[in-house]
Amino acid sequence: MKVEGRPTRTIWVERPPADGQRGAVGIIDQTRLPHAFATESLETPEDAARAIRDMLVRGAPLIGITAAYGIALALHDDPSDARLREAHDLLLATRPTAVNLRWALEAMMHRLRQLPEAEREAAAWIAAGELADEDAEICRTIGVNGLPLIRDIAARKAGPVNILTHCNAGWLATVDWGTATAPVYQAHDSGIEVHVWVDETRPRNQGAALTAWELANHGVPHHVIADNTGGHLMQNGLVDMVIVGTDRTTANGDVCNKIGTYLKALAAHDNGVPFYVALPSPTIDFSLGSGRDIPIEERSPEEVTHIWGRTAQGDVTQVQITPDASPAVNYAFDVTPARLVTALITERGVVAADPAALAAMFPERAAA
Amino acid sequence: MKVEGRPTRTIWVERPPADGQRGAVGIIDQTRLPHAFATESLETPEDAARAIRDMLVRGAPLIGITAAYGIALALHDDPSDARLREAHDLLLATRPTAVNLRWALEAMMHRLRQLPEAEREAAAWIAAGELADEDAEICRTIGVNGLPLIRDIAARKAGPVNILTHCNAGWLATVDWGTATAPVYQAHDSGIEVHVWVDETRPRNQGAALTAWELANHGVPHHVIADNTGGHLMQNGLVDMVIVGTDRTTANGDVCNKIGTYLKALAAHDNGVPFYVALPSPTIDFSLGSGRDIPIEERSPEEVTHIWGRTAQGDVTQVQITPDASPAVNYAFDVTPARLVTALITERGVVAADPAALAAMFPERAAA
Repeated sequence: MKVEGRPTRTIWVERPPADGQRGAVGIIDQTRLPHAFATESLETPEDAARAIRDMLVRGAPLIGITAAYGIALALHDDPSDARLREAHDLLLATRPTAVNLRWALEAMMHRLRQLPEAEREAAAWIAAGELADEDAEICRTIGVNGLPLIRDIAARKAGPVNILTHCNAGWLATVDWGTATAPVYQAHDSGIEVHVWVDETRPRNQGAALTAWELANHGVPHHVIADNTGGHLMQNGLVDMVIVGTDRTTANGDVCNKIGTYLKALAAHDNGVPFYVALPSPTIDFSLGSGRDIPIEERSPEEVTHIWGRTAQGDVTQVQITPDASPAVNYAFDVTPARLVTALITERGVVAADPAALAAMFPERAAA
Repeated sequence: MKVEGRPTRTIWVERPPADGQRGAVGIIDQTRLPHAFATESLETPEDAARAIRDMLVRGAPLIGITAAYGIALALHDDPSDARLREAHDLLLATRPTAVNLRWALEAMMHRLRQLPEAEREAAAWIAAGELADEDAEICRTIGVNGLPLIRDIAARKAGPVNILTHCNAGWLATVDWGTATAPVYQAHDSGIEVHVWVDETRPRNQGAALTAWELANHGVPHHVIADNTGGHLMQNGLVDMVIVGTDRTTANGDVCNKIGTYLKALAAHDNGVPFYVALPSPTIDFSLGSGRDIPIEERSPEEVTHIWGRTAQGDVTQVQITPDASPAVNYAFDVTPARLVTALITERGVVAADPAALAAMFPERAAA
């Protein structure tokens, strides 16, 4: 999507390897958003590992693609099996529980191991590029499939379609388009008047920092709101639909997403507001029967007690908002039961959040 | 309640007027909490007006009592009707929509106007002190009435009774005890094991700053959580009851309270967790049929885009958390419909949130 007027992806080839020179991959340093737009060049697998570990890149798809390029970068000096394995292990260790990361690394290993060493570097750049393009295409198609839902509301009302979203399921978490934001960007680009309510998404403020920044740069009208606000807006007819992303969806349609998603789903249900979840179908986990089977990550309490922001002097710093004597707890995700989900928007189509509908749309996965 | 081990109120007589010397009233400068415990002396009505306007004191009951003492302070140099009226107008203008403020000022005027000028100053100090004691007694009685609800849960389970609260309906908002916190303090003081989940309460963070500070000082076990967290806790059996305060309750039992309360009430209802609202009965507005009749205050967007906190160097400062190009919206309250409220805890007793029950418990008010 656009940054300062120019179409931009979250990861790109800065310089392909050529004439014995090593290649380089560009990324946005997302830790500096929204206060600075800075990019970095990755030239080694160690660069790629650091970018993932220190969260310069974040979001499951983007982490996977960054790791894939990390493999490509590793093969420049040494295309041996040993080096391939070493780079794989280095990159996997950055976020050992990230499913996409493991999947992207395995896809690269599978493709490269069978090739002669001399062909591996070039093939790795092509393979990583294909993974990136596939991700962008999945997200674009989620947008194509979600667009009619927005268009239908626009046809029935005057003024903008008001869409509430939680956390960042935007293009910054993917290669391009995002998941929850893909239908929004496509509606905006096709001339439908949209307005987004952006939940700030405590404690890490991905909404206030990332989603707001994306929307501002692409020119989509929006307002940041405290996470507490959505229920009041829905009670007063100020939200036409909710679209969120998800980290994992279970076979019965339960949705695991950023903490607080469940509260918005309850409010949407209570006020007759449609609640959609946009997702690439690989994040549906048919091996889990329900959301109760998903362990919820507990993160550092410091994310609750301290907040990053920019001072009036322009320095980016952290401030403590709680008394020294008060401990905090920080659950990262919650589970929204399928009964509160109007439908899932996938790259294959819009599908009801129930086991039969999911199995019918993804028969090859449900059977496996 | 206790601060650094000593029983403390939010407002107290530092020095009564004597031998021609002016009196002084002490308050806690709540704008400096939780990072510093600082008190201030009020010696003139202008001091009292500034304390209210700049929110050194906040919370409807405490504002009213501060204004009452402001009248007493005004009468030292000049006990005339003109001075009385002037002080009344000065204090009322600080927060023109605050119902308690208007009520406390009118109570003072009614009592003082009929007295000879020479008796007014002494009478004003007595009257303000009585108002303060009445408020503390109302809150203490709310605690007495709410305590059995906690005791019943304690009797049915092992481990602490987990109570979730939103915003600050604590003693800092009143003279002592608080409203939502009164049953909690009484349970703790009587040896029942309680643990409080403190919603940080964005955007102004009254939970993280004030409720947490209160509980820490009184020794009540608690954890601060992001406002997004309560639903997940309730889904997992980690909340035994919710107790919140309210700014205004309507004749049908709808409850207007800090933004986000409605979301917690939805989650409590969805998980079978009892949801109680503690309130002094004067905040029940029998002239309003339902919560839809309450206009919701919109406050400065800067409360959303900027957060106060303490840097690692110990300075208290404000940081911006949003991109410059992103606007914000800030609704201060929402309305929780009576159907989601298990019961109201008042100084007269625990009462169902429905028009008939309220009219039966407060017949003299409902008829008026």
